[in-house]
Amino acid sequence: MSKVRVAAFSVSLDGFGAGPHQSLENPMGEGGMGLHPWAFTTRTFQKMFGNPDKGETTGINEEFARRSFENIGSWILGRNMFAPSRGPWTDDGWKGWWGDEPSYHCDVFVLTHYPREPLPVGETTFHFITDGIVSALDQAKAAAKGQDVRIGGGAATVREYLQAGLIDEMHLAISPVLLGQGEPLLQGIDLLKLGFSVTEHAASPEATHMVLSKGR
Amino acid sequence: MSKVRVAAFSVSLDGFGAGPHQSLENPMGEGGMGLHPWAFTTRTFQKMFGNPDKGETTGINEEFARRSFENIGSWILGRNMFAPSRGPWTDDGWKGWWGDEPSYHCDVFVLTHYPREPLPVGETTFHFITDGIVSALDQAKAAAKGQDVRIGGGAATVREYLQAGLIDEMHLAISPVLLGQGEPLLQGIDLLKLGFSVTEHAASPEATHMVLSKGR
Repeated sequence: MSKVRVAAFSVSLDGFGAGPHQSLENPMGEGGMGLHPWAFTTRTFQKMFGNPDKGETTGINEEFARRSFENIGSWILGRNMFAPSRGPWTDDGWKGWWGDEPSYHCDVFVLTHYPREPLPVGETTFHFITDGIVSALDQAKAAAKGQDVRIGGGAATVREYLQAGLIDEMHLAISPVLLGQGEPLLQGIDLLKLGFSVTEHAASPEATHMVLSKGR
Repeated sequence: MSKVRVAAFSVSLDGFGAGPHQSLENPMGEGGMGLHPWAFTTRTFQKMFGNPDKGETTGINEEFARRSFENIGSWILGRNMFAPSRGPWTDDGWKGWWGDEPSYHCDVFVLTHYPREPLPVGETTFHFITDGIVSALDQAKAAAKGQDVRIGGGAATVREYLQAGLIDEMHLAISPVLLGQGEPLLQGIDLLKLGFSVTEHAASPEATHMVLSKGR
């Protein structure tokens, strides 16, 4: 059955999915890059960065990295994951953080308050959705054609879908860093009441991976 | 140098140090026992439970369990760690959760609003401190005679000492469980601003161990 998934989502020991003061220079917020060393160890992510011969091809980090892209038919992103700009879209030529061939290779639905025509970039098409998270999910499910929909983030977007009861599975990577401040991921959300339990748990030197699933 | 330490303190994936609805029957709150399987695997804790031949004598869990008791000269506990009762002390015969020979074997300072004479139980003496956390720490340091002072908990007591900037080192064990609700440990506390960083990180199948230290 098609699932709605969060995957390869890194959080700090103190529960933040990104650091404070996000900006063009610092898209993950202050200290936010410290969340992701586990991903940099992997062949899967190194390939995306254009380094096809770098990174581990085995091990727990690589396994979770690889699985995070498996059977994904479409993506949903918060606007800030797509662009550092705010407010109405301008003709600024921005095509996302990912260059001419974004690693999605499918339909990506961007949550925004401001309408905009779809934007094809390489094999990826960004669709801009202004009528809410449920509409975005309906469209993402249709586009996924039976595969899974991945909620890419950021933290605020994951929280919205979680609180609406719309996420089936989450893979979190807890990195051994403190951010102090930033975007909390789980704070104030009762995951037990939402039906989740921890169904997988494995650790590498760079992160502890936990999978939360519903209905077991 | 003598340190003020939190050690072998278990938290859930969603950040709770105990479950909701603590009671005499359920001293760790609903689901709270799920925080501690890593400790039950260890020889150190099994010995405390009266099973000197049970538990692993090697491995990460045992190493952290053993270290948690090393060089401890005195303890500080919140009242609820000592007793399920609330309000003024009555002559109810309660001597703590630990039987005739508590595993402390030293002076233990219990934070309370209600005065009470010291209570010796086996090699442990419980002192009841009514003039605040700083006074309790001063007395605990004097009693520790150069060894470390361990803040035993619960979560609210650890938070008070953290926020006052009085804790030097914390070993947390993140257990792969969700509690949904309960006593949050770190929520709203800026550990970076307090000067902490993650100085150790190791994982077993039962828990991810992290050590947070100041001033590195």
